[in-house]
Amino acid sequence: MRYFLEIAYKGTQYNGWQIQKNGHTVQGELNRCLSTILRQEIEITGSGRTDTGVHATAQVAHFDYDGELNPDRDAFRFNSFLPEDIAVKAIRPVHSEAHARFDADRRSYEYHVVQHKDPFNDHQAHHHRSALDVEAMNNAAHHLLGRQDFESFSKVHTDVNNFFCDISRAEWKHEGQRLVFHISANRFLRNMVRAIVGTLLDIGAGKSAPDSLPAVIAARNRSAAGKSVPAHGLYLTEVRYPASVYLNE
Amino acid sequence: MRYFLEIAYKGTQYNGWQIQKNGHTVQGELNRCLSTILRQEIEITGSGRTDTGVHATAQVAHFDYDGELNPDRDAFRFNSFLPEDIAVKAIRPVHSEAHARFDADRRSYEYHVVQHKDPFNDHQAHHHRSALDVEAMNNAAHHLLGRQDFESFSKVHTDVNNFFCDISRAEWKHEGQRLVFHISANRFLRNMVRAIVGTLLDIGAGKSAPDSLPAVIAARNRSAAGKSVPAHGLYLTEVRYPASVYLNE
Repeated sequence: MRYFLEIAYKGTQYNGWQIQKNGHTVQGELNRCLSTILRQEIEITGSGRTDTGVHATAQVAHFDYDGELNPDRDAFRFNSFLPEDIAVKAIRPVHSEAHARFDADRRSYEYHVVQHKDPFNDHQAHHHRSALDVEAMNNAAHHLLGRQDFESFSKVHTDVNNFFCDISRAEWKHEGQRLVFHISANRFLRNMVRAIVGTLLDIGAGKSAPDSLPAVIAARNRSAAGKSVPAHGLYLTEVRYPASVYLNE
Repeated sequence: MRYFLEIAYKGTQYNGWQIQKNGHTVQGELNRCLSTILRQEIEITGSGRTDTGVHATAQVAHFDYDGELNPDRDAFRFNSFLPEDIAVKAIRPVHSEAHARFDADRRSYEYHVVQHKDPFNDHQAHHHRSALDVEAMNNAAHHLLGRQDFESFSKVHTDVNNFFCDISRAEWKHEGQRLVFHISANRFLRNMVRAIVGTLLDIGAGKSAPDSLPAVIAARNRSAAGKSVPAHGLYLTEVRYPASVYLNE
């Protein structure tokens, strides 16, 4: 049987999602835990990697198990075995061809900013000290919407065929003590959200002109955009699939 | 000039509030920081101590400074120098006799409980696994109100003259993903909030009878009450003073 696993993790103590020979990774921890508990070699495949220090409230991964799981009971067993900073939120049976990476039709991220010193932050939000014009940041973010070439916000050496992404949401909201950027798209390039947020913060802080974003996109050149913001403000918050991947539960 | 300092701290990395010869304490960090920045020996006096691992969102302390402070500018300077897990929220000038401990007329604490595994918890809430009857816990908490002898909830070897406390608030509330106990009183005995919370959780989990609390209080014996819950769920959230302690600002 093939299953989707929905997972939350705090990325601070991990060298990112993807398994490495000599690194402590979320994928590595999950493979180890599932293989031990299910007494067979389990290899999970994520919807995509997250970088060192990046968090997830709802990463999705698939795996095959030669047997049948009891979603609630087994999620509880996995959670008892996994470290405190990784939690399994759900296990769902899917069709045998369902693929966590290739079938995802929308991904969402949040970037969390705090503007005051917060002793309880614990690497869970980026502390940005200067005043921010959130309205200007939202006006600029509006230019990100739709299908466009986002090479200006991509890591320079990357192996993708094209830089087109279709962004369906891009907005800043005040949420409690935090200022949160919400962004959704069919796909994201490596480092893209952090480069976009850095560019928008420059606009909010008055370091770049409020109307500069269209020219930054049009440049198709990483050096036209702002600096990447730190990993610890970034959260993968949703990976959406067509309903047809799931088995009737 | 005498000043009140309002301070927030995450207690996880500290051996409590009170300065010790060989311990890393919040009071010790603040004395060191203020003395360095103000270039004179500063000794702060807190409203009361908090134990190892206990947090504060609004501890208050007083100190004397031979000079005049600019509250906003100097709070910013202190925060730049202090570690990430201690923040100065306000500096307020007070009368030369004002005392952070003796003049406080009400103190408030919160105890934070989570019932599901949360990778972002970071020692900021107590994970209680079993189901809880919050209505029963609130009915029991109601019996705590008023001026009573709380020896049943006090550390056994303690040097207080009497165990009377006047509790003005005691209630559980759902707040986002957390279940939070709010308690306010004129004074608290050592370990009192954690012993009260442990006793109420036993009632909520069905380990003690819903109507058992009055007998626990009447026993005036620590062994009649439940176990103390862990320090990392506890927050000192307010210390209130009569308006007369403050200088006109």
